[in-house]
Amino acid sequence: MKNRQWLLERRPQGMISAADFRWVESEVPAPAEGEVLVKNLWLSCDPTQRGWIAGDTYLPAVKLGAVVRSFAVGQVVESRDAKFVKGQLVQGLFGWQDYACVKAGTESAPGRVPEGVPIETAMSALGLTGQTAYFGLLEVGRPQPGETVVVSGAAGATGSVVGQIAKIKGCRAIGIAGGADKCQKLVSEYGFDAAIDYKSEDVGKRLRELCPKGIDVFFDNVGGEILDAALARLARRGRVVLCGAIARYNDSAPAPGPKNYVNLVVQRGRMEGFIILDFMPRAAEAVAALAGWLNDGKIKDAVDVQHGLENAPATLLRLFKGENRGKQLLQIADAQ
Amino acid sequence: MKNRQWLLERRPQGMISAADFRWVESEVPAPAEGEVLVKNLWLSCDPTQRGWIAGDTYLPAVKLGAVVRSFAVGQVVESRDAKFVKGQLVQGLFGWQDYACVKAGTESAPGRVPEGVPIETAMSALGLTGQTAYFGLLEVGRPQPGETVVVSGAAGATGSVVGQIAKIKGCRAIGIAGGADKCQKLVSEYGFDAAIDYKSEDVGKRLRELCPKGIDVFFDNVGGEILDAALARLARRGRVVLCGAIARYNDSAPAPGPKNYVNLVVQRGRMEGFIILDFMPRAAEAVAALAGWLNDGKIKDAVDVQHGLENAPATLLRLFKGENRGKQLLQIADAQ
Repeated sequence: MKNRQWLLERRPQGMISAADFRWVESEVPAPAEGEVLVKNLWLSCDPTQRGWIAGDTYLPAVKLGAVVRSFAVGQVVESRDAKFVKGQLVQGLFGWQDYACVKAGTESAPGRVPEGVPIETAMSALGLTGQTAYFGLLEVGRPQPGETVVVSGAAGATGSVVGQIAKIKGCRAIGIAGGADKCQKLVSEYGFDAAIDYKSEDVGKRLRELCPKGIDVFFDNVGGEILDAALARLARRGRVVLCGAIARYNDSAPAPGPKNYVNLVVQRGRMEGFIILDFMPRAAEAVAALAGWLNDGKIKDAVDVQHGLENAPATLLRLFKGENRGKQLLQIADAQ
Repeated sequence: MKNRQWLLERRPQGMISAADFRWVESEVPAPAEGEVLVKNLWLSCDPTQRGWIAGDTYLPAVKLGAVVRSFAVGQVVESRDAKFVKGQLVQGLFGWQDYACVKAGTESAPGRVPEGVPIETAMSALGLTGQTAYFGLLEVGRPQPGETVVVSGAAGATGSVVGQIAKIKGCRAIGIAGGADKCQKLVSEYGFDAAIDYKSEDVGKRLRELCPKGIDVFFDNVGGEILDAALARLARRGRVVLCGAIARYNDSAPAPGPKNYVNLVVQRGRMEGFIILDFMPRAAEAVAALAGWLNDGKIKDAVDVQHGLENAPATLLRLFKGENRGKQLLQIADAQ
């Protein structure tokens, strides 16, 4: 029994590539007192991982030669912590590997997995992704009924949930995504009022048409020119929720910022960033609301599943190529 | 008796110039029923005037051939509105001219001038300038005692008051200004804890030295590279108050935005714009507080006075060249 692992070989320059990672096989570690040995079943692929391997962000950078940091769901193989038992599902920052020795109180502390839903749902709509949509939209964006909410990266894991919550809250929801198929799905499957295909349409022109009174809340997953177009169309007292800037994560040099930020003055606007980890003490609130909406059919989960630990780098890359359809997951083993 | 006026000849391209304006002499108008004829005494020069003549902003653009919009203090010459009497001082958007026929309920509605202080003070520390510092810092920036407040354009009319209010509220105040003389004045006269001369010092390096724990509130009057340097140094949950972007007002093409806006995500920061006119219903609150502080010697007024209506374009230009020392005023007549 081996522990297959992806280690960080070098910090990425520009777009991440397979050569940034090194595949090794080592012994399965034995848990010390207080530790839990977890077998990973599912890995979560998230844009923020690009930041974690590039340098210090809101978490310390992954060290060269260390296992690549990744959120995961696994199953307890052996527990030397009384709070966990063999066979139990747990989640946490377990990394790109088959087995992780994890411990409460550390970065990779194991947490409980919501029950009564598939693991995929626990990792997407009920996981950090859905909670990001929930807290980012409601706590940072604070949409009011009747307002217009625009979401970039709308076909992604977070964006699709943002649009659906906006509808639940009585707002108009407009999604921006790349490709006609994604855009059609936004309207027909997720209930957005309209979608803009940034690959074939003039985003600024379409925003003028679709948002005649301006954008009240812009939930930005993308950055770059799309953020600029949205800033230009901001409504009076509009809010820009900065969730990420995937368009820029693989830049080797910092790209120019949004020139239309000056419109924040004219429109008395607010642009605010957030990190979902800050909201973890309130996670139960989000999970309860999201689970209720899922149960009532008011939101649909969007999951894109790939398979095999060996495909971890390629699967992460799908996010930056815009190939994923919803939350990108990588299944690497079946539960016992 | 003539009415000398500066009309808008063309919209500025790049830096404003004398050729953007046309000097005319016309008859002094006669007030209709409900109107008040005002003789202008003092004109206020404000960076936002560049926006007003360039196009629509938060106010409709000044029309070509119309008198250049300007805040002013004048004296009632003839009143056909029962609320005003001859000889009374009034303030409002009376424009670059000797005489204005103004009327309640219109853009140029006359308002009362705070009494018991020189007109210069009523137009600077107690005027829109001081109120901009007051509401922008306290309502948008929301500094807490012990926090670090950094101000760009710190030697200007608004910036100098921002720093002084920050000190009153128990914060560290650091000013950024151009030139050793301005910087020295910030510390010796206005009580800033430190000053950075952006013309001779590396702003980013100095911010790292002076703000080891980061910037809690950045009050930005300038934009451009200074804003980027401050964003790079933002503290956790730091706030950027966007008051203006004088560095960019005379750009003929939009300059790149702040590339470090992405740090708003990492630091959970907030960047927010405001327009002082929104706070006018609460003006009395600011005037009372500012008058108290002036009276107690806790804030000092900074006023730069030029003379003569013929010098209006050149005096406005002083702002964009960074030549003004405090609030830029133009006295064009003496009170009778």
